[in-house]
Amino acid sequence: MIDGAMQPFALTLDKFLAHAAKWRPDAGVATARDDGRVEKIGYGELMARSRRVSAVLAGLGVSLGDKVATLAWNTQAHVEAWFAVMGMGSVCHTLNPRLTPEHLGAMAARSGARVLIFSADLADLARRIAQLVPQEVRLLAIDGPALEGAEALEPLIADAPDGFAWGEFPETAPCGLCFTSGTTGAPKGVTYTHRASYLHTLRALQADSMAITGADTVLAVVPMFHANAWGLPFATPAAGANLVLPGRNADGASLARLIRAEGVTIAVGVPTVWLGLLEHLEAEGGEVPSLKRIVVGGAPMPPALMERLERRLGVIVQTSWGMTELSPSGTVASAHDPVRSAGLSGRPAVGVDLMVADAEGRPLAQQRNIEGHLHVRGAAVVERYFGEAEPATNAEGWFATGDLARIDEAGNLAITGRAKDLIKSGGEWINPAEIEAVVSALPEVSLAAVIGRQDPKWGERPILLVELREPGASDAALLAPLEGKVASWWIPDEVVRLDAMPLAATGKIDKLRLRAEFGGVAT
Amino acid sequence: MIDGAMQPFALTLDKFLAHAAKWRPDAGVATARDDGRVEKIGYGELMARSRRVSAVLAGLGVSLGDKVATLAWNTQAHVEAWFAVMGMGSVCHTLNPRLTPEHLGAMAARSGARVLIFSADLADLARRIAQLVPQEVRLLAIDGPALEGAEALEPLIADAPDGFAWGEFPETAPCGLCFTSGTTGAPKGVTYTHRASYLHTLRALQADSMAITGADTVLAVVPMFHANAWGLPFATPAAGANLVLPGRNADGASLARLIRAEGVTIAVGVPTVWLGLLEHLEAEGGEVPSLKRIVVGGAPMPPALMERLERRLGVIVQTSWGMTELSPSGTVASAHDPVRSAGLSGRPAVGVDLMVADAEGRPLAQQRNIEGHLHVRGAAVVERYFGEAEPATNAEGWFATGDLARIDEAGNLAITGRAKDLIKSGGEWINPAEIEAVVSALPEVSLAAVIGRQDPKWGERPILLVELREPGASDAALLAPLEGKVASWWIPDEVVRLDAMPLAATGKIDKLRLRAEFGGVAT
Repeated sequence: MIDGAMQPFALTLDKFLAHAAKWRPDAGVATARDDGRVEKIGYGELMARSRRVSAVLAGLGVSLGDKVATLAWNTQAHVEAWFAVMGMGSVCHTLNPRLTPEHLGAMAARSGARVLIFSADLADLARRIAQLVPQEVRLLAIDGPALEGAEALEPLIADAPDGFAWGEFPETAPCGLCFTSGTTGAPKGVTYTHRASYLHTLRALQADSMAITGADTVLAVVPMFHANAWGLPFATPAAGANLVLPGRNADGASLARLIRAEGVTIAVGVPTVWLGLLEHLEAEGGEVPSLKRIVVGGAPMPPALMERLERRLGVIVQTSWGMTELSPSGTVASAHDPVRSAGLSGRPAVGVDLMVADAEGRPLAQQRNIEGHLHVRGAAVVERYFGEAEPATNAEGWFATGDLARIDEAGNLAITGRAKDLIKSGGEWINPAEIEAVVSALPEVSLAAVIGRQDPKWGERPILLVELREPGASDAALLAPLEGKVASWWIPDEVVRLDAMPLAATGKIDKLRLRAEFGGVAT
Repeated sequence: MIDGAMQPFALTLDKFLAHAAKWRPDAGVATARDDGRVEKIGYGELMARSRRVSAVLAGLGVSLGDKVATLAWNTQAHVEAWFAVMGMGSVCHTLNPRLTPEHLGAMAARSGARVLIFSADLADLARRIAQLVPQEVRLLAIDGPALEGAEALEPLIADAPDGFAWGEFPETAPCGLCFTSGTTGAPKGVTYTHRASYLHTLRALQADSMAITGADTVLAVVPMFHANAWGLPFATPAAGANLVLPGRNADGASLARLIRAEGVTIAVGVPTVWLGLLEHLEAEGGEVPSLKRIVVGGAPMPPALMERLERRLGVIVQTSWGMTELSPSGTVASAHDPVRSAGLSGRPAVGVDLMVADAEGRPLAQQRNIEGHLHVRGAAVVERYFGEAEPATNAEGWFATGDLARIDEAGNLAITGRAKDLIKSGGEWINPAEIEAVVSALPEVSLAAVIGRQDPKWGERPILLVELREPGASDAALLAPLEGKVASWWIPDEVVRLDAMPLAATGKIDKLRLRAEFGGVAT
């Protein structure tokens, strides 16, 4: 007797927009413009426009597997470009406008993209990238008019035919390409696939994760040009939720106005963004009553900020952990967890598995309540970087994240540092993250970083680099709080005051640059 | 430049138990015993035992793709058998103990199962099935001792080796087999696959669907012997939630006791079960304060019952629609939907698509606010029945559910009847479901069914069959409420009083039997 069968159903990302267009045609995407206007489009019309963009790209010779680069802010036109590129089976290579032209040119040269869709206000950078790559690049401007050497996409959309057919390629086909920020090494390309990003999206819809529903309006402050904006442009149509995009303005006043105007219920971004919102509301007054939850990630969450947000705004703050290589979400703390804390990033959902190992990648005998090198495995985790022949995973399929972490008894993840940041002094390890956490908590400190400086006697010794809110704090005042909190030999040998801490393009402290400048033997 | 890759990750059901065992070892399964005790096991130990069951089955010669039948109530041992069979790539053929031995024998003969795992209190039925099939069947008793002709599974588990390896087969492999209830035709076998049931499970975890979280304790009154207990034995470990199983006792007193003892937060079952709970609580007093939500489905939800449940118990009632062919969930009304109603079954989640058609399957030009034949498409919907060569879907991949439905402007599904129940009178259609809804709402009526009786002049004419709570109601009293609510020519020609309405094994009214007995020309 032959077995029966279930229907074929390819896990491709175009399904999300098709679902929203059919079942939530009135929900859609709202984009904040620089002049304060908010532009809106329903999912039905957005899909129709996006299919026309596919037709435009096909007309330019783009086909299955080809890379199309984008260099753009979070706007409707960027979302349309994403679905257009991915829906036709091409690969969206997102470029981060905060990187240098040289870095971006090197990335675009590697991807081989022959079309670059860019925000009109980034025209200079776009043209520079096009000059730096060996291939000929067609420039298409969005969110603005045609420019020298670049057509505007909008008139092409108007002329394009309707109903370009999406899908019809294997679910394992690549859909996206994003290079890591490279704060601790050379940027590596992560190739996202339809299947991986589809399964990653379903995680965002789970009640224990971001729990996005059709009743929600989600503000995505996390950029589409890095790590898929945490998958929100996929998860919102999949849930039938509204997506609110801030354009390039993420200051507190702009966000407060946008949250109120659109009735945002869930807001997603790095901690500093919400500090800006809080300080704006505290200075100017006003409320954001529609807001129920804030999802943070991408950097350590200061406990005091979490408490202030929850108390002042009446929201639940959900911490999270992820990285470019994870599509990018690893864990999200559940809003249903009665014991939430700024230092914990939640328990993994099914489809994500975590393990702590020693420096050689051997699993620790104890997996709970002990610090180790964090490894991850799962459906939306990198196996092999772009252009590499060798896997990025070990023989058991684990990917070494480079993070140090501790997992508590209940399975919650606490990131405790970066393995590459560790300082080896006299044969023993010093964890800069623990020192930084103490110094960063001082009111006079704006940003703090600890790096190892070469030392003839100890191999390496820690030094502290600080950007102060106002000058005046003595070395002793900055270091004294460390006593009793870290071992005495962990206390930095020197304090260096910087006018401005160097930041990488994703907003993280650029330790590569700090090490280059300050890591040599003291003279 | 070669593209990178994401990690391989097969969507197989063993992943759910492995996830729960690692990340929620203290959560698990609680089973109510007939003597009132509640037996508990953590997911870690449950997985270990279940792997030993796989070893036992392998020792009996069961291998990849082989069918193993179960005939059992909702208990821990049944869950262990499920994961044991499915984890090793064999196929769990669930048998419904409320069917006749002849029906069950015919099903087991078709599946070819050579092992039957049965609840010890169903030994007579199990032996009868074994006698009726051509193949030799090994009988293994759970939840009780060895019996004549049947070994007990428990001692075999004790002797079995640990660590049987699960997985290592394609995700499209079959995992289960269930025959439809056959209330309107011959039973057909639906073959579930790992991939389909995995994706179906992720739907149950979505915030807009059943929204099961790691903080939940879920009571599954829906039987594991039919339609996968709505997938709850998969969804609860996937979410890290506790699963509470009532054994064979689903009366109001037993359920109230179990909900209180285990702190159940979500309860899932057909409407009549919750009527029993409500009547018990109203008669005996007492509360179930832990209960937050009740998910109902499998039969129309009476609006008055929904209102009483929400008011008396302080819960949210989520209506749903599904069928064996859908793994089985089609839609679930969101708890976040401000406009819930007993007559609506929710909007489809991504991965499920609905369409209303005419009697020939042609899509209606209007898809909203008009009654049509309901078709469905999606990742967990049957494509081809067990043993059939031809697909169960049309050329566009739609499966005709046999239901009549209306979809409202917001995309919510309202089931309005069964296509096969329709009565053709004088060339026009009469929908029995609309008549039944009016008559069933009368306080003196326990159950009501309308069928077509052959008629020499009109082709068919409707007759009403009723089971009354107490005798006495006149024909006029039963039919009068229909006036003004349905067309006058829809009003049944005759009222037939039955001592007991014939029910099929799933608890639905057995219209096949009613038609056989009462559908001929009136004499």
